[in-house]
Amino acid sequence: MRIVVIGGVAAGMSAASQARRRDPGCEVVVLERGHDISYSACGMPYNIGDPARGLEDLVILSAETARSARGIDVRTRHAVQAIDVSRRVVQVADLEAGGNYALTWDALVIASGATAIRPAVPGLDLPGVFVLRDLTDARHIKRYLADVKVSTAVVVGAGYIGIEMADVLHGLGIAVSILEKADQVLPGFAPAIVEVATHALERHGVSVQTGTSLQGVQREGDDLMVHSDRGVIRAQIVIVAVGVRPDVALAREAGIVLGASGAIAVDSAMRTSAPAVFAAGDCAEAHHLVLDRPTWVPLGTTANKQGKVAGANAAGGDEHFGGIVGSAGFKCFDLEVARTGLGASDIASAGLDAVAAVSTHHTRASSYPGDKAITTVVYAERGSGRLLGAQMIGGEAVAKRIDVFATALHARMTLAQVEALDLTYAPPFAPVYDAILIAATVGVKALAKPRQ
Amino acid sequence: MRIVVIGGVAAGMSAASQARRRDPGCEVVVLERGHDISYSACGMPYNIGDPARGLEDLVILSAETARSARGIDVRTRHAVQAIDVSRRVVQVADLEAGGNYALTWDALVIASGATAIRPAVPGLDLPGVFVLRDLTDARHIKRYLADVKVSTAVVVGAGYIGIEMADVLHGLGIAVSILEKADQVLPGFAPAIVEVATHALERHGVSVQTGTSLQGVQREGDDLMVHSDRGVIRAQIVIVAVGVRPDVALAREAGIVLGASGAIAVDSAMRTSAPAVFAAGDCAEAHHLVLDRPTWVPLGTTANKQGKVAGANAAGGDEHFGGIVGSAGFKCFDLEVARTGLGASDIASAGLDAVAAVSTHHTRASSYPGDKAITTVVYAERGSGRLLGAQMIGGEAVAKRIDVFATALHARMTLAQVEALDLTYAPPFAPVYDAILIAATVGVKALAKPRQ
Repeated sequence: MRIVVIGGVAAGMSAASQARRRDPGCEVVVLERGHDISYSACGMPYNIGDPARGLEDLVILSAETARSARGIDVRTRHAVQAIDVSRRVVQVADLEAGGNYALTWDALVIASGATAIRPAVPGLDLPGVFVLRDLTDARHIKRYLADVKVSTAVVVGAGYIGIEMADVLHGLGIAVSILEKADQVLPGFAPAIVEVATHALERHGVSVQTGTSLQGVQREGDDLMVHSDRGVIRAQIVIVAVGVRPDVALAREAGIVLGASGAIAVDSAMRTSAPAVFAAGDCAEAHHLVLDRPTWVPLGTTANKQGKVAGANAAGGDEHFGGIVGSAGFKCFDLEVARTGLGASDIASAGLDAVAAVSTHHTRASSYPGDKAITTVVYAERGSGRLLGAQMIGGEAVAKRIDVFATALHARMTLAQVEALDLTYAPPFAPVYDAILIAATVGVKALAKPRQ
Repeated sequence: MRIVVIGGVAAGMSAASQARRRDPGCEVVVLERGHDISYSACGMPYNIGDPARGLEDLVILSAETARSARGIDVRTRHAVQAIDVSRRVVQVADLEAGGNYALTWDALVIASGATAIRPAVPGLDLPGVFVLRDLTDARHIKRYLADVKVSTAVVVGAGYIGIEMADVLHGLGIAVSILEKADQVLPGFAPAIVEVATHALERHGVSVQTGTSLQGVQREGDDLMVHSDRGVIRAQIVIVAVGVRPDVALAREAGIVLGASGAIAVDSAMRTSAPAVFAAGDCAEAHHLVLDRPTWVPLGTTANKQGKVAGANAAGGDEHFGGIVGSAGFKCFDLEVARTGLGASDIASAGLDAVAAVSTHHTRASSYPGDKAITTVVYAERGSGRLLGAQMIGGEAVAKRIDVFATALHARMTLAQVEALDLTYAPPFAPVYDAILIAATVGVKALAKPRQ
């Protein structure tokens, strides 16, 4: 029994390890196009911001350990070029040694991930212009920052990665400008959250230009001239973080069905449309429990979990991925930002009738030192009162508060049920009514009002 | 319509304010035996530890503001001496002006709170020996610490308040010894949690004597000699924090039914056995959603919520308290400790067949600076797999993680459902598998093993 895994990062290595654990007798081959396997991609921005740490800190499992301790045949710099689902064979190019070979499989796990979107403008291949998708990108950025005197940076895109990179570059003493095509930073977040984030960026001296499109980059001596429809910024580094798309070329060419999102369609066992072919991670869809339909939300935690399920099932198991509610968090300078469930645009496109309720509160008892502000937006369905989503921004303990909302979404709670939760109270950690409960109370009142 | 409220702290003032809000025409009289109303009792230890802050920081609503802005007739230093439920009248003593008067009511809310247990040993009335139950106690302690040179303190009792007071006194540069009658600190907590807490106390130089009973206190010059069955400790201050009992004397004498816990029996509308008499807060029981029976868990957050329900219903409303799951958290020096649901002794006395699973994990990605250890104990029922309780201790973000377990308890989730939760992941806030998920995984494995 040979299981072949395409991709050796979060989903791929989780699948490979789980397959070996489930069936120690099976042969598991991981084919990874890049140089690295099993690293924390989410940790890359923070690591770039810390010259004292090496990128090897992010490696969870080295290829050597995967081979020796887990018995996984890891082949880095081996790129799959085609999948033949009827003959159960992949065509592989050895990028280091050269040459091609065919490898047969009894089960296949596609964990090809996602690729960074590069806008179709000139100059993005210039030295000093980077995307941040894999450890090789991180290595290039870190080396560039060590070698080149960078005083000004332009970050294109104000999503999670863009904000994290702005934070990290600012922390290195670099003046940062952010260009964002949408009319706000943090696309997908509610206005009340965006307002607080925007103030944080301004407070830290980050120049933010929203509604601004990158038109191209030119080199001028030691500098990069970053052209947008709002003018030109002179910088020494440009980070393009305008999003990712699922890497589904191999799957599509093999005739494997893609979902409406463009990612590979899977069932809860991570099976694709092709027999004995599984998919997991950023290349695959995930069932969204609030929408009750497949969606594509590429995140490390989902990749790890889906990988485990795919690996177990490739080795003959019968495991199921429980689905997602869309929980994500990140740092925005001295603030934490997190969300779960649906946002306004998700609600609109799902045709749901919902209220949005904004509240501001405290992270600790106001009499306790170090109390910080926290802003919450909750979405709930009119009629049923069901919680649909929540977003928070604040000085501390935001991500784990969002996890309470995430748990409530899993349980399909109404906002009134959230309001009745018995949560911990102690002055160092929460006011007597936690921000979660205040947000629910404000939301319950909004639900009770007639539509305006 | 006159509503009389006995007690003016958390439950009492919540009831009074809610009654006025619900029916602005009703007369609301609050009869408070002490000097203060509406203060954060939970904030007292921390405030005592901070000489720069005044205790008035803890006052949420002054008597003056309650009168002028909310139209509540607040009478401090007025002690109710008897309740006549058939004639609907209370007998009141004016402790300042002297004299007694009768006050009739259409509805009564009993929010008489709890009183500190004082062991029946000699010397507890000596100057320098304190309990910490109300703001007057806090005032006395704070004044004593300002006036007297205290180099050594004895804290009797290693529950929440005892640990908090040990923390605070240690922070003031005082050598602290803790005497605890039980054979562990944090009675009710699991051994794995207690072990970490004990190490924290030792690391901070706190002397802990468990299995040790206070036998009495004697004054010797400027010092207090604290006698136990293990010996004598010389100190300048003694804090007795061995627990509280519900203050139900008035209710019992009025013939109002008490529950098995000894606190006042109430339904979800906070009605007692007597018509038009409500009870709320530390003197009343609360329905425990995991045990599905009344229990007595005196906590500020429950008091506030029950008070609101009692006040609304005293004013003609039809509100209901949603019950508790037993969530509580506190600081133990540089650690946070929190719990929710049932502990081992609750499980044993409820006759449930459960597993306990211990796990240790990280509060952040291990590659992220500032990562701290976190230890979790989860309890789950054999057979059903239902989560019964959770306890955590760690360097940060413990209380809000316990809130996730609390939410899962409200939703009656199994541990397998907890394991499938889609929680936020970002290196500054959590590893890719949060400590909650790891704890659930370990618990699910324990459930799968045959009983030993």
